[in-house]
Order: sequence, then C-alpha cells, then structure tokens
Amino acid sequence: MSQHVSGSSAPVRSSSLSTLPTLRVAVLGAGTVGGEVLRLISQQGDELAHRIGGRLEVIGVAVRDIARDRGEHVPAELLTEDAASLMREADLVIEVMGGIEPARSLLLDAMANGASVVTANKALLAQDGATLYEAADAHGVDLYFEAAVAGAIPLVRPVRESLAGDRIQRVLGIVNGTTNFILDAMTRTGASFDDALATAQQLGFAEADPTADVEGHDAAAKASILASLAFHSRMRLTDVHCEGITQVSAQDIAAAARMGRTIKLLSIVERIEEEGGERISARVYPALIPVDHPLASVAEAYNAVFIEADAAGSLMFYGQGAGGTPTASAILGDVVSAARARVHGGVGPRESRYAELESIPLEELRSAFYISLTVEDRPGVLAEIAGTLSGYGISISTIHQELLEQDDASDEPARAHIGISTHRALESAMTSSLDVFSSTATVLSIDSILRIEGE
Amino acid sequence: MSQHVSGSSAPVRSSSLSTLPTLRVAVLGAGTVGGEVLRLISQQGDELAHRIGGRLEVIGVAVRDIARDRGEHVPAELLTEDAASLMREADLVIEVMGGIEPARSLLLDAMANGASVVTANKALLAQDGATLYEAADAHGVDLYFEAAVAGAIPLVRPVRESLAGDRIQRVLGIVNGTTNFILDAMTRTGASFDDALATAQQLGFAEADPTADVEGHDAAAKASILASLAFHSRMRLTDVHCEGITQVSAQDIAAAARMGRTIKLLSIVERIEEEGGERISARVYPALIPVDHPLASVAEAYNAVFIEADAAGSLMFYGQGAGGTPTASAILGDVVSAARARVHGGVGPRESRYAELESIPLEELRSAFYISLTVEDRPGVLAEIAGTLSGYGISISTIHQELLEQDDASDEPARAHIGISTHRALESAMTSSLDVFSSTATVLSIDSILRIEGE
Repeated sequence: MSQHVSGSSAPVRSSSLSTLPTLRVAVLGAGTVGGEVLRLISQQGDELAHRIGGRLEVIGVAVRDIARDRGEHVPAELLTEDAASLMREADLVIEVMGGIEPARSLLLDAMANGASVVTANKALLAQDGATLYEAADAHGVDLYFEAAVAGAIPLVRPVRESLAGDRIQRVLGIVNGTTNFILDAMTRTGASFDDALATAQQLGFAEADPTADVEGHDAAAKASILASLAFHSRMRLTDVHCEGITQVSAQDIAAAARMGRTIKLLSIVERIEEEGGERISARVYPALIPVDHPLASVAEAYNAVFIEADAAGSLMFYGQGAGGTPTASAILGDVVSAARARVHGGVGPRESRYAELESIPLEELRSAFYISLTVEDRPGVLAEIAGTLSGYGISISTIHQELLEQDDASDEPARAHIGISTHRALESAMTSSLDVFSSTATVLSIDSILRIEGE
Repeated sequence: MSQHVSGSSAPVRSSSLSTLPTLRVAVLGAGTVGGEVLRLISQQGDELAHRIGGRLEVIGVAVRDIARDRGEHVPAELLTEDAASLMREADLVIEVMGGIEPARSLLLDAMANGASVVTANKALLAQDGATLYEAADAHGVDLYFEAAVAGAIPLVRPVRESLAGDRIQRVLGIVNGTTNFILDAMTRTGASFDDALATAQQLGFAEADPTADVEGHDAAAKASILASLAFHSRMRLTDVHCEGITQVSAQDIAAAARMGRTIKLLSIVERIEEEGGERISARVYPALIPVDHPLASVAEAYNAVFIEADAAGSLMFYGQGAGGTPTASAILGDVVSAARARVHGGVGPRESRYAELESIPLEELRSAFYISLTVEDRPGVLAEIAGTLSGYGISISTIHQELLEQDDASDEPARAHIGISTHRALESAMTSSLDVFSSTATVLSIDSILRIEGE
C-alpha cells in the first residue's frame, strides 16, 4: 500500500527530494498573479520538485516599492527593488510585472546571464517578441509564455507543439474576458454597452480605465502572438486590424438574435490561399456568429479558442482567460518545462518563422457583413441602397426593415431602420458602398457595420 | 517581401533544407491512420523539416501482408513483412498497428536499439504502459502517445506538461466517438440502442463487432492512461470500473430529458480526498449530466474532455476523437517533438508516478443515482421503496411515477413505473438497496441504475 498524504500540499516521499539540484528562481512583479505564483510554488514545492527533478528556490521578488505589504504569500525578506542584480543570479525568471520597459531590458539581461524566462507579458511579446526570441536563441535559454494568451487555457503549447505536424488554417478566439463579459451581459439583459461596462467594473471584470480591453488592444496583442505561432511567420502588432466593442449597440445585439446569431469580440488569424501563394490575416472585431457555433455559448468572462487545421479538423479549447490563480497555473506549467530542461538538458520550442508569410491588408479580405442604416421612409430608398451594394459586387442575403416611431406632431419625414446582411464581399467594396451612403440624402445615418463569421 | 509558396504542400525556402540531418522513420502498420501519417509526411515534408530542424526519411512500413495494395500514399517499395529488422534501423518508430503483441515486443526492441517511439496504441499503454515507460527510461529514448487518448485533441501534452504546475482534481471525458454517436442519435431521435447502433454501423461510426466501444473497454483504457497522467500514479486497467451503454434504454433517455439532463458515456478520473490521505478513482459508465454542462452539447462522434484543476479551474478540450486524418495530426505533433529532441538534444516527459496513490474501489465512492423500477401499483409501494433507501442512508431528490398501460381484460395487477433520483450516497448502500428490491415482491423489475454527474 502506498503512502497517503494528508492535505493537498503535504510532501510525497520527501526524503528523496533533499538530494535534488536546486534552481534559483527570480520573480519580477508581485501583483495578483505574482502572489499566486509564489503561493503555488510554496504550497506545492514538493510536488513540483518531483515533476521537475529539481527544487525551486525563490531567491527574490522584484517590486517597485519594497515597503508595501504584499500578503502572506510574498515574504517581505524576498522583496527587492534591485531587479537588475536579481537578473544576474537566477536560473529562471518569472516575469509578471507587465509593460514594455523595464520588463524587456530585465529579461534581455537575464537571458544574457543564462537564465530561462517564463513570461505572461502579451504586450511585450506582441510588440517585440522577435528581440526576446533572438536573445533566447543567442544565449541557448528557453522562452515560455503560455499565460500570455487565454490565461489558464493550454493553447500556446498545443499550437506550437501538438499541432506542429498539421497545417492550421484559421483560429477564432474569444481571448478577452472583459469584453466577453460585457457582450454576454448585453445579450442576456438587453443592456446598453455603457450599462454593461458599469456592471463589469462593479464586479471587477473591467478596469477603471477599460480602454485596453474594450478597444480590442489586448485581443490584438494576443492575435499577433497566435498568428506568429500558427503560421510560422512574424505578425507585427501594427498589421493586426483592431476594432473594439464600444460601438456595439443593444439594437445590434437584438438584430443578431433575430437572425439566430450572437455578437462576440473575436481575434481571428487566418491563412488566405491565393493564386500563386498565400498570405495571413490577423484581426480583431466584434462579429456575428451563429448561436449554434461552439464559441456562441462561451459565457461571462470565459475564454475559448476555436482552431481549424487541415488534418485535426475543428478543435476547441475553453477555460478561464484571466485571474491570478488560473494565470499562475499556466505560468507554473511553463516553469516546470523550463526547469526540467535545466535539470535534464534539452531546449524548449524556438521561434518558428521559416514560412515568412506576409500579412494581407483588411481591404483585400472578403467577409460577410451586417449593416444597419436609418433612412427616410419613402418609396425607392431600399432599391437605391440595394443598387449601390450591387454596383460594388455585394449581394444581399437578408433585409429587415422597420418603421421607426415618430411624434405625430413632427414635421420630420417618416424614418425607417434597415438591417442588411450580405454574402461574402470585398472589404474595400463595402467601404466604397458606405462612402456612397454617407453622401446619400435619404440615408440619415449609418448605425452599424459588423462582420459575420463562423458560418 | 517574403516568398509566396504555391499550393499547400510546396517547399518553403527549400534550398536550406538539404543540409539538415536525416532521421530514419519506421512505421508499424499501414491501415487508415498509417496511410494518413505517410501522406502527411510526404506532402508536408519540407514544412516538417523546418519545424524539426531535420528531415524525416521513411525507411520502411511493416505490414502483415506485403502483397495487399495500400493506396498511393503507401509506396510498395517501402512495405516489408520483416518488422523486426526495421526496428534495428530506425531513429523513430511510429506504431499504428494496434493490439498487444507483436506491438509490445517490437517497440521494446526498437527502444533497446535507441529509437524513440510514437504510438497510438491505447490498449497496449493501458495494459502494459509501465513496461514501455521503463524501457524508454532505461534506453534514454522518448515515448509519446498523444493519439492514444481523444484522437486529434491535444490532451496528453496539456495534462502532463501545461498542467504540470497544477493539481488536477477531476477529469470527465467523452473519449469514445462510437458511443457518443449512438447516445446522441438516441437522444435526437428517440431510437432504441439497437437501432442507433445499426445506424452507426451503416454510417461507419461503429465496427461490425462493436464490443470494445459499446461495452466501454476503449473508454476504460483511455481512463487508465488519463488517471496515470493526471495523478502521477499508476492506474491498472483492472482497477478501472467499466460499464458500457448496451443497457441504456430509450426510456432512460426520455427520463433524463424530463429532468433537464442528457446521458453520456463518461470516462471519469478523480482524486478523492479522505481523512488522512487521498485515493484516486477511474471509472467508465453512462451518466446523466445537466443539459447545460459543457459536455452535454458534444454531438455525433466528437470527443471532449472536461478538466477541473485547483488553480486553472475548469477547462474543456473539444475535437475529433478518431478518424485517420485527425489521429495522424496527433501522431505528427508527437513525431515533431520526438524528432526535435533527436536533433537538438533533450528528453521528453517521463513517466511521473511519484505520488503512488492507490485506487479506491467503486463501492466506497459516493454518487448521485437515477434508478427506475417497475412496481405493482398499489398503496404503500412507494413508501416501502423510500423506506428501504432511507434505511441505507440514501436520500431521495426527485420521484417520477407513471401508471403503465394495461390490457383491460388482463388479470395482472396494475403496474407503475417509478423513476427516482437521489442525492449523493455510497455505492455500496445503493447495491444493498437494489438487493432488497430484487427480493421485494412488489418490485417487478429493476429497469435501470445510472449515476448522475457534473452537478
């Protein structure tokens, strides 16, 4: 009969652990994620030691203000404001401070001094991943970043390792929990964007300054990382088309529901096969997807990523995309891999960019669209709109028209709302049509322009 | 501007590939999966070479009958009936022949000769994984088996690498496509098991002899593998409790629907914390799960695995669990990892069994149950049944009673159907209650006994 351990953090055959080699671990940042990483390393130390074949010894935690109390899992004696010195002493650096500088310089220093790096810093990876990859290569150390995309969901590893023998065609991801929470709340309650955002802020699902989330910047950084991994090419953040959800209205949500669809903020990375070659696209925008699409039922702040690959077919990964503990889980998985390589030899996955595919500008992509217009309600308006679209090669799939209520006493002409969904058409053709509508007297306003995906 | 390649299998910067080292690959078996593996290696050779940093050269494909035509992707000149010789010449062996022998002996020979192994053989791993692991260890080679559980879904790698820093509490998996197809058809159409099985056979989703699938043996082998990975302990196949779906009736499906539930064949592996220690459970049975559980919407022959971990929270992985091409995708991901390690050094994950947790017998587990009985319809019967359950400490959650139609001329006493769902209770208590019911005159038959999970 084997030994039973008492409680979840008890040692398992601890006697054999004392002979294991020790790995010096430095942590950059002691926020929510950093605190959880330290808690797990401390509570599961023996289990981790077994899995690694070595012991993790945290030699320091670099913070900006050493005086601040960080709770029980961040021992005061480990805190230091001298991150630079720490980088020279570590075998392994866990970076959870975020931001571009000083994170980048510190990680480059650490790698130059022979440390492997585990980071959750999507902004840094999206903006300057190439520099980090090159440093890891040059110094023969490992660079892991599972936590940078979709939090706790194992995604980076499956994409760059499990699917390494396959060809990924498309990835549709819900990779920002804040915006999914807001859109889900709007869908369930009929609330406006502003009200749903306020609720998300009250419940801690959105920051006081929600810009990075609601404008899609966070999702765009993740799309850039995913595209690079999926297509073995570099994808610059500046080449990721990015639209947020601030323009999504309660009317859009209702219109989507009427069509059997729901609105999600998607990070889309896609391989576009063309005559004589292929290019890749990475883009972020709110899109209508069918309610029976696997991504449609992803509720609240959950994340999910849907992958289409030539051989594997459709895959989906679902889980928590943020939060201290889930993010710490992803980081520790990477820590175990990086630490195992230190103990047993070998190198982790390197940057794979042999394909060197160019990115395709949004204007050259073909999408299905949903547009909604407010027009004067008089004969011929619909024909005029349909004629404009048709003139640009855009064919209409469905039209929904609705007379808008009006004050009886008003002198204003009667107004109607028109919702049109189209078949797939060139983005540039839609842009041209909208230009025409803007200067058409009978079109009083262009209320929404959204794309339709996942059909 | 980067080069564009023409078509999906065209070379990418091929000029640099000729200088790469070559890895000799032997394939055991040339069935559907083997053929797809060979097709992908041939069509994506240059892409794989970039990802590996080495070229894969297939040196032979071992089959039982060299004379049979295997289609265009299995070149006749590679076929051999002398698998043993092949094992002495390979750097990497891909085993897709299945069965225990000669697969086991051949793989042990190959590892003794220094080859790394990629296998999809769940039966062999479940029955004798320990021997394979030990051989890999002894000879310093790698053993990969992503394709053995849930086909194309990256699952083995996430569990043993991504979640290596976490503590898995429970895994609920739909890991057999045939049985999911049958149960899904029964749910959608109201068909009986026999009719749904016949449909599955006609459509190629079930074998002519469906025993291994419908009796749960395939799912049990996968549960044993999953439990070993998730809990860092060995889980013998004989310790996996296994029930198939042949007893699931259209009435059970209808009763589940009435309760807002659906029936799925689940492979469950679970950590049971007890006073003074913990044990682990692996079991396979058809279970009722709530219709809003993420696993409930897994349709047709798809697989999905739901994981609960301390830090990561709830995760789900979804995709195709079988089929030549999806399985080949999983195999090639492993091939790339194993081949990279040959080229760049390092070792893959080893067996992790430091925890040495014992398995807990089913009788000692607590589950919620659904039981259905046919009883004589007369006063006091329900009270008698409730009394028996209560006597064994089982408390009832809901009761549904229905008078059964009867020939007016019949002399038989009136009969009723009773469906009872219970709160969580000891398996042994339920067994004792059923023993009592079997010898109770008013209980005419025990029609079903199913467990309720995922609540």
